[in-house]
Amino acid sequence: MEIDRFECVSPLDFRYYVPNERLKELLGDYVTERARVRSEAMVEAAATRVLARMGICSEAVAGEVTHAANAVTPEEVAEEEARIHHNIRALVNSMKSYVSDDAKPFIHFTLTSFDVIDTATAWRLKHAALEGVIPALEELERVLIALARREAETLQVGRTHGQHAVPITFGFTIAEYISRLGGRIEAIRAAAENLRGKISGAVGAYNASSVMIEDPEEFERLVLAEMGLQPSPISTQVVEAEFVTDYMHMLVSCFTVLANLADDMRNLQRTEISEVAEEFQAAQVGSSTMPHKRNPWNFENVKSMWKQFMPRMITVYSDQISEHQRDLSNSASQRFLPEVIVGLTEATLRLTRIMGRLVTDEEQMRANLAMTEGMVGAEPAYILLAAYGHPDAHEAVRKLTLQAQQTDTPLGEVLQASEELAEYWSQLTDRQREMVLDPTQYTGIAARKTRSICDMWEQRLGL
Amino acid sequence: MEIDRFECVSPLDFRYYVPNERLKELLGDYVTERARVRSEAMVEAAATRVLARMGICSEAVAGEVTHAANAVTPEEVAEEEARIHHNIRALVNSMKSYVSDDAKPFIHFTLTSFDVIDTATAWRLKHAALEGVIPALEELERVLIALARREAETLQVGRTHGQHAVPITFGFTIAEYISRLGGRIEAIRAAAENLRGKISGAVGAYNASSVMIEDPEEFERLVLAEMGLQPSPISTQVVEAEFVTDYMHMLVSCFTVLANLADDMRNLQRTEISEVAEEFQAAQVGSSTMPHKRNPWNFENVKSMWKQFMPRMITVYSDQISEHQRDLSNSASQRFLPEVIVGLTEATLRLTRIMGRLVTDEEQMRANLAMTEGMVGAEPAYILLAAYGHPDAHEAVRKLTLQAQQTDTPLGEVLQASEELAEYWSQLTDRQREMVLDPTQYTGIAARKTRSICDMWEQRLGL
Amino acid sequence: MEIDRFECVSPLDFRYYVPNERLKELLGDYVTERARVRSEAMVEAAATRVLARMGICSEAVAGEVTHAANAVTPEEVAEEEARIHHNIRALVNSMKSYVSDDAKPFIHFTLTSFDVIDTATAWRLKHAALEGVIPALEELERVLIALARREAETLQVGRTHGQHAVPITFGFTIAEYISRLGGRIEAIRAAAENLRGKISGAVGAYNASSVMIEDPEEFERLVLAEMGLQPSPISTQVVEAEFVTDYMHMLVSCFTVLANLADDMRNLQRTEISEVAEEFQAAQVGSSTMPHKRNPWNFENVKSMWKQFMPRMITVYSDQISEHQRDLSNSASQRFLPEVIVGLTEATLRLTRIMGRLVTDEEQMRANLAMTEGMVGAEPAYILLAAYGHPDAHEAVRKLTLQAQQTDTPLGEVLQASEELAEYWSQLTDRQREMVLDPTQYTGIAARKTRSICDMWEQRLGL
Amino acid sequence: MEIDRFECVSPLDFRYYVPNERLKELLGDYVTERARVRSEAMVEAAATRVLARMGICSEAVAGEVTHAANAVTPEEVAEEEARIHHNIRALVNSMKSYVSDDAKPFIHFTLTSFDVIDTATAWRLKHAALEGVIPALEELERVLIALARREAETLQVGRTHGQHAVPITFGFTIAEYISRLGGRIEAIRAAAENLRGKISGAVGAYNASSVMIEDPEEFERLVLAEMGLQPSPISTQVVEAEFVTDYMHMLVSCFTVLANLADDMRNLQRTEISEVAEEFQAAQVGSSTMPHKRNPWNFENVKSMWKQFMPRMITVYSDQISEHQRDLSNSASQRFLPEVIVGLTEATLRLTRIMGRLVTDEEQMRANLAMTEGMVGAEPAYILLAAYGHPDAHEAVRKLTLQAQQTDTPLGEVLQASEELAEYWSQLTDRQREMVLDPTQYTGIAARKTRSICDMWEQRLGL
Repeated sequence: MEIDRFECVSPLDFRYYVPNERLKELLGDYVTERARVRSEAMVEAAATRVLARMGICSEAVAGEVTHAANAVTPEEVAEEEARIHHNIRALVNSMKSYVSDDAKPFIHFTLTSFDVIDTATAWRLKHAALEGVIPALEELERVLIALARREAETLQVGRTHGQHAVPITFGFTIAEYISRLGGRIEAIRAAAENLRGKISGAVGAYNASSVMIEDPEEFERLVLAEMGLQPSPISTQVVEAEFVTDYMHMLVSCFTVLANLADDMRNLQRTEISEVAEEFQAAQVGSSTMPHKRNPWNFENVKSMWKQFMPRMITVYSDQISEHQRDLSNSASQRFLPEVIVGLTEATLRLTRIMGRLVTDEEQMRANLAMTEGMVGAEPAYILLAAYGHPDAHEAVRKLTLQAQQTDTPLGEVLQASEELAEYWSQLTDRQREMVLDPTQYTGIAARKTRSICDMWEQRLGL
Repeated sequence: MEIDRFECVSPLDFRYYVPNERLKELLGDYVTERARVRSEAMVEAAATRVLARMGICSEAVAGEVTHAANAVTPEEVAEEEARIHHNIRALVNSMKSYVSDDAKPFIHFTLTSFDVIDTATAWRLKHAALEGVIPALEELERVLIALARREAETLQVGRTHGQHAVPITFGFTIAEYISRLGGRIEAIRAAAENLRGKISGAVGAYNASSVMIEDPEEFERLVLAEMGLQPSPISTQVVEAEFVTDYMHMLVSCFTVLANLADDMRNLQRTEISEVAEEFQAAQVGSSTMPHKRNPWNFENVKSMWKQFMPRMITVYSDQISEHQRDLSNSASQRFLPEVIVGLTEATLRLTRIMGRLVTDEEQMRANLAMTEGMVGAEPAYILLAAYGHPDAHEAVRKLTLQAQQTDTPLGEVLQASEELAEYWSQLTDRQREMVLDPTQYTGIAARKTRSICDMWEQRLGL
Repeated sequence: MEIDRFECVSPLDFRYYVPNERLKELLGDYVTERARVRSEAMVEAAATRVLARMGICSEAVAGEVTHAANAVTPEEVAEEEARIHHNIRALVNSMKSYVSDDAKPFIHFTLTSFDVIDTATAWRLKHAALEGVIPALEELERVLIALARREAETLQVGRTHGQHAVPITFGFTIAEYISRLGGRIEAIRAAAENLRGKISGAVGAYNASSVMIEDPEEFERLVLAEMGLQPSPISTQVVEAEFVTDYMHMLVSCFTVLANLADDMRNLQRTEISEVAEEFQAAQVGSSTMPHKRNPWNFENVKSMWKQFMPRMITVYSDQISEHQRDLSNSASQRFLPEVIVGLTEATLRLTRIMGRLVTDEEQMRANLAMTEGMVGAEPAYILLAAYGHPDAHEAVRKLTLQAQQTDTPLGEVLQASEELAEYWSQLTDRQREMVLDPTQYTGIAARKTRSICDMWEQRLGL
Repeated sequence: MEIDRFECVSPLDFRYYVPNERLKELLGDYVTERARVRSEAMVEAAATRVLARMGICSEAVAGEVTHAANAVTPEEVAEEEARIHHNIRALVNSMKSYVSDDAKPFIHFTLTSFDVIDTATAWRLKHAALEGVIPALEELERVLIALARREAETLQVGRTHGQHAVPITFGFTIAEYISRLGGRIEAIRAAAENLRGKISGAVGAYNASSVMIEDPEEFERLVLAEMGLQPSPISTQVVEAEFVTDYMHMLVSCFTVLANLADDMRNLQRTEISEVAEEFQAAQVGSSTMPHKRNPWNFENVKSMWKQFMPRMITVYSDQISEHQRDLSNSASQRFLPEVIVGLTEATLRLTRIMGRLVTDEEQMRANLAMTEGMVGAEPAYILLAAYGHPDAHEAVRKLTLQAQQTDTPLGEVLQASEELAEYWSQLTDRQREMVLDPTQYTGIAARKTRSICDMWEQRLGL
């Protein structure tokens, strides 16, 4: 069935997913409607193969059903579903049309719909993460690591509350994101690999399978092993909800790290700050009315997509609740889960693109650092004065900073001119005075830490 | 551009919107990508017509631009946007290709992109509500009113905490929803009619328009009047955010009423309660493995869609915040707003369909009411005893209900046998005793109120 | 009962509410536990007075009960509740201890708990808004109006995407918030005045009251009139949920406007921008380690409180759903509603305090505006060139801005030197050239609009 | 400072936390304001002890500071904070008053406020989970395991969509929750043990500590080791946000499991179902007006608290974002984090109490199972028919169930009377026929699975 993109409502497909070849390449086998049908057919085939292995049907039957699973098309299934209003029964009927009468009874044999649906969903979500989301995130990590190494020594003022604090390097700024993203990659991988399936029947007690199968838990284990999955410790009609909940949480919390990075970059791109910029293409228009504008629209887009997808966790938590051996009120809502995967991966690819070509302005970073005329020396000054015995160094320095501001004098001058502090000041080594008087000397271990973080995450992630 | 539905991710279009002819009929002109482009072109044309009226360009130019607005296709605009990465400039360029060189400068003249985007969005959201959402809700109201009138006298036990309380009628149960939905219809209408546009330029101070136009606020008023809209009291690059926020709140809170109705109906459909049922089609399959199941899947679907769309209000509140004269971090997220409209309308149509064919079982309702063996008489008993002077009637009756339960005796018998209460009991009139002893006589004004609610809302909504 | 503040968990009371005299003065009568008990007693008394008026009990009884309502203490009620685990029955029992045996039966006569609870809640929420939230917001409006008038002509660059766009005035920046807040004040008032009570019994069908009262709807109207309220059109055990939902939405969306204002101010306080600052007290410490820091911590606090309270709307929407004639699953959650009122009012008072003493730096605003060397002239240039017939003015000017950037030449010089544009440029009037070349001349109607917005809202709000 | 509970707004303390001795015992050392101050003082003392170990100050100084940390009271600190408006500087000043002039400089030496705050928070959250939340959850697990073992064989109908599906046992119903809660206990423990501290200074680059300390990362490791914590891989002014985010997610998703259990129990308590009941105390009042009511108010309370606390995850995700080396906009909001811990633990204790005394009605469970007159035999019938070669068993049985319903005949009779099925039916073994005809024989491995789940979780959790 073809859809006219201009007759669509949701921007997810026509604007973000479908035109993005890289996104489709990464995720297409796991997030689309076609993927859904295919993965469900795979579960049906896996179950029949295990029946054969257990001697309940013949290997020939298993072969037929495996063939049917490969042959059946979503088009056929959709047509049958339109007739009978039940998607798994539609799949089963469609698959039956590909097999002999002998094989027919062994398709969906002892299974309930959600044995197939939940298992197939776990398989798709798992692979979407392992083959799509994580490779995209790792590529972003590589880009950030290259950037951090390049800028490991590039002086930048550290900012807290939007105010200048004490100096760092731009590489160190990026290293924070390398580590946070690295942590999320590991967490997404762990959650994806922990997704579970189930082959335990209508209410989870193996009622149907135990009619014909000696050890129905063994049957479940074998079918799931065919799909590369493990069973839920126990299930109702559905798998314990927490496996998917954790998985979604990891995606959403990872999206939040991306949003944070995007926020930082667009703030650094403010006209008054101008430390970084998105690269602009020659023909690109920044504003329909202000021809001079270069807006950080990609970073804004990442933040905006986060605002769209982060609240979906409320849906996920709501879907953790299902009455008794389940109600269906999580069914439609869970159909929207893959949207979050697409949103996150799209944002990752976008950030990889921009961060890989990020324009940085080292001179401007230095100029910004110099703006406060040595005021960042207040911190080392107070620490050194305290170390040399001043009983209330913080208060003493605080007053001098006020004096420096009121008299518009660099803090270093005020400090050196202070009679009260002279006795302590004289004890400082040259290196210590330098740290106080020259902010560029007061970056702690920013550069070293930047490199060690890059090393650590390259190793942990095997990049 | 055609999209293969099986290569899509979002179920919104391929599963819910596109195949639903009625939904497309109600909303198609306002929620699709085509509608977006068309409405934006309408704003451009309106602006040029007002320029002509103000003598800034000729009527001929205005005619050309109006023609261009009708002629331009989303296909052209999309192609141009792919080249220059700016959607409104792409629209402007595309429209220019339809007009003479004389007219070219007067397309988008003094406008900023968001003059066009926000105004067009207000127009689409307004009409989506007035021509789509509200007519659908009114149809549901009509169905519910017919049902409530039909069942105005049908006895049903009122339930609080899932426990039997005192009797009502099934019509009364439905009347609650008629009133709540009626209130939401009025609220949606008011919010829709209060949506605002803006033609005030890049930062809202009419910088550009005041270059060429004497009274730029008059220009804004006239352009918006062409679109049937009023201006935002003041704007930045965008309209004050609260108009859309309120509108979305009204949609979401209306969706919640539908979810509540759906919950009630599926609870009444529980096997043990069985007071209502969704009608089932002959060929329809209820369960892939339990051939006897008749599930309330439509009601569950409504609840599930609510779980998907309700949390979107978090996005809306987040989008109320925009830095300075605006940042763009609400842009992508707002592209998803029409999804909520579609979700709500889909749920409304679905409920209209099921509620219109709702199977009710009057006998079962009576049987359920009878289950507690007159225990509902406790309330009128305690009130009447109090009225006739018992100083602690509530406590006295509470103890008798315990006695009734422990001895498995109908409460009426226990009451009549009580020596302690005899003095008060003897004062009751026959009608009063009947209310205590026969729950079916104790429905308050349920039936009358049902009808008056139906009357009131028919009148207020002009149904 | 006394609580040690250091043994508390929730910062709401011990940190924000209890130590804030102004907050307690504004809200104390409506948001505390004492207020809850008092308002519920008021409803009980109102009901008995109406019974007297209807001739069901004597005026003397009504007098006794009114006295009991005034006399009963929350301490007594709490003690009784600890015994019987039912809060309204505890209130009733406590009130009975103040009256004669004759009066006892007429306390809570025909009422159900939620007749009292919902009605009292509506009364408290209504007055908390009218006597607390709105006066606080109006005070903030006054402060903002004074600020906007003072700064109506103060030049500031308008910013979109964090980038310099075109000039406005700082008063205009503030005017946007005056209007948005003004709109929320009106919306909160309307929602507060639309809150409803109910006296319709256990399931809303007036079962109990119709036992003894001819026209139970009249009884409901009269009781509610005593409380200054109107009835819900229909109710179950509880009032239609949408009245409170709308009220909470208006509070939360108002909170969002405050958060937006706070964000803008702390961004303007960034070291590199430095256009405004929170006033600092002499003894105040900005940072424990960086003695020079002056952080916008009040603005950050407002944003932080918004992050805490905005998501509560999810609770509110969830509480809109209640099964059948109600379940109690909204009971505990609704006890937290007053927290949102306190949070919002606290943030309002805080902003009033800071905005009233906001330090603004006009010189820095001008310096920032000058940073882009006339680049803001691009917009009027393109409009005027278009007006004088250039067929593609936007593209022409866009290229010149690139040239200006690459050659580090002010845009005005580049424009005047352009041979291609000479033919159009020569047609500009002196005033028009000035607008292009001198950004301070290109503020549209910012100052005028600032004043008209101040005038309008003063009038609409009666300030 | 004493607070009058009736002058409080938030129910969290005065209603839920403060009067609950068990809750205070479990959590008091970690969630209160006193705990905050104490834990922050512990970090200050730990830092000075490590300074002594590194030879930067004397052991005597470290001893003095450790003493000060034990001696300082929240009362003093609050008083000082009121003066200087900075909480950590207030703590430092207060601690200084307990030590000699020699020791004064070594309190907070090279630390920034958030070294102390974030580390102390991690310590409190960790121990609140390990000493409070988890022991409470384990107690609930024990209660559920005892219940499940007791009811392992108690027949109950499995329900999907609120409809009878196929039989299970009531123990099996409970086993699902044992497993889900068990999983959450493990996840909470892992997240708690993974919480991190930081001693890396104002912007995370160890600027201050590297002034005086050779290996500032070693300093950080040693200080955190004193607190039983590990460092964040890298930090800004604050620890990487994801450690707390994951921790909160685990709490919230655990709360959701409790809400699900509560929902199930109150549904099973519906008048028509009546399979379980909350135990009622003798003096307890169920309804103020309906003396016969026994409401599942504790279960409703658990669900209601979940509605209040679940949405707090939106706050948590929002707080994951902090600009540059941090803004403070997560400060006030994070002060509310312990509320979620209290809410969850309160709900856990409540459920432990009710589930430990849950009244179950085995007879009613059997009666409910019998309601559908053998219709649950449809599933085994269809499977066996398929196994014996029927090519379309599902459809054949589906039609017979319709016939059974229309003729009001038990399904077993209809099946046995079917001529079409006779050929297959005759092949069934006796045991197989029994499964079809007697629902009580069709419980799969429910009882066995119940026990194995109990065994597994007892072992994994060491109960």
